[in-house]
Amino acid sequence: MIESVANAQIKQLIKLRKKPKERWKQGLFLAEGWKLAKEAVELGMAKKLYVTQIGLELWKEMVEKQKEESKKDTRLVNVSLEVVSDTIFANITDMISPQGILALVKMPCYDIESIFLQEKANLLFLEEIRDPGNLGTIFRTAECAGINGIILSNGCVDIFNPKVVRATMGTILRMPFVYVQDFILAMKRAKEYKIQIFGAHLKGKQNFFLENYQGKTAFLIGNEANGMTEKASLTADVLVKIPMEGHSESLNASIAASLIMYEAYRQKLFAGKI
Amino acid sequence: MIESVANAQIKQLIKLRKKPKERWKQGLFLAEGWKLAKEAVELGMAKKLYVTQIGLELWKEMVEKQKEESKKDTRLVNVSLEVVSDTIFANITDMISPQGILALVKMPCYDIESIFLQEKANLLFLEEIRDPGNLGTIFRTAECAGINGIILSNGCVDIFNPKVVRATMGTILRMPFVYVQDFILAMKRAKEYKIQIFGAHLKGKQNFFLENYQGKTAFLIGNEANGMTEKASLTADVLVKIPMEGHSESLNASIAASLIMYEAYRQKLFAGKI
Repeated sequence: MIESVANAQIKQLIKLRKKPKERWKQGLFLAEGWKLAKEAVELGMAKKLYVTQIGLELWKEMVEKQKEESKKDTRLVNVSLEVVSDTIFANITDMISPQGILALVKMPCYDIESIFLQEKANLLFLEEIRDPGNLGTIFRTAECAGINGIILSNGCVDIFNPKVVRATMGTILRMPFVYVQDFILAMKRAKEYKIQIFGAHLKGKQNFFLENYQGKTAFLIGNEANGMTEKASLTADVLVKIPMEGHSESLNASIAASLIMYEAYRQKLFAGKI
Repeated sequence: MIESVANAQIKQLIKLRKKPKERWKQGLFLAEGWKLAKEAVELGMAKKLYVTQIGLELWKEMVEKQKEESKKDTRLVNVSLEVVSDTIFANITDMISPQGILALVKMPCYDIESIFLQEKANLLFLEEIRDPGNLGTIFRTAECAGINGIILSNGCVDIFNPKVVRATMGTILRMPFVYVQDFILAMKRAKEYKIQIFGAHLKGKQNFFLENYQGKTAFLIGNEANGMTEKASLTADVLVKIPMEGHSESLNASIAASLIMYEAYRQKLFAGKI
């Protein structure tokens, strides 16, 4: 059992928890809590699990139970486990009520061309989304709405931030996504693949309910405070507006994204295209 | 200028900021930041404004400018202003970057029967929504989607919590809402007014896109972790399900609420009923 904060592994975990640069340098991030950790192991993405004594017992129980139900998963049996004291776990957790289990996970790596090449490309372009809660919620909703790839500008908050990882509710392990240096270039590349880009814009002329989203589509969502950049708005194929009653100036970015993704999903669903 | 935390007004503001019970006992709450404070004054809901020296100057400038534009609003001119030192303001603010202006606001008081009586009743029933961010976002989106009344169970987070107030982006000043002791009874009363209640439920049998929301409607949203209570689900007229792709178990409560409210809005809009 690891009982010292001076332990090299613990030092590494603390760095990974706090520093985005370390995460990207090492290509590793932390996925905390039962569901996330278990799924990371099942998907072969977890390098190691860190558990408290209680966490270890619960893990063994779960693995045994799965064996009985003959849902054998050798990954669950063979994953490398490290037990740490409760005091040490308090240093690596990011949760208010820690569950005593945390996975060290390899960053997935996706190829942007493969994302664009999909026959039923249904993408999101996120420009400068800064709020961790918004980004997590957008990922979570995107999977539900059948989005199959997300392109993020470099100025978006780090998706591997432990809070965002948890807010995605596991979607981070399954959704193809890439951060790009040149966001406008990425938009232009998407258009070469005949993907039509719809930007959600307060000054959009088209009511978003009236557009056709049955082909290859991408939805562009801008920064929470300032909206999308002018360059991005000029690169989009269509700027759509979400109609609004009352006196509010705008919708929250994750709400706006969700409404558009689900309208597209509705259309594709009823046209038998999903 | 108030410079002491021992000042009776400041003591009151600190209590109102931190204690839900004090807010309800006094029937007062705090609305911080320029837009909110100004709107509270314009609507005649602000009892007093508390400003820093800089806040005071900006306020005077704004009032002058409005005079020139002949958008005279005697409320803006006549509102009672209290200047406090920056140090004192730090004790009453709830913002990371305070704007130096905060309004002491009278709680609005709505009558549940008038809400139910509306010819185009389009309501929300919120049961045990616990997350301040979710509640604020639901209010903000509700106004945009044309909702004209919100019924909250007593176990919902306090809408007058300064964080929720800000997250509503002003909707709290305009949207009729009531907290009720007996949530199920309130649902039953709504039904007596021929308001059809649609509950968003993971086990709902109807795809929510396939229901008709053109009449008098109410949407029921349950707790973030546990969903709605069985009693509430049995009282609802229809349980609808939001279709989902992928492996996520559920959508965030504010996203689910928004999708249903906007689908109803879409239907009413295109049927010319809004």
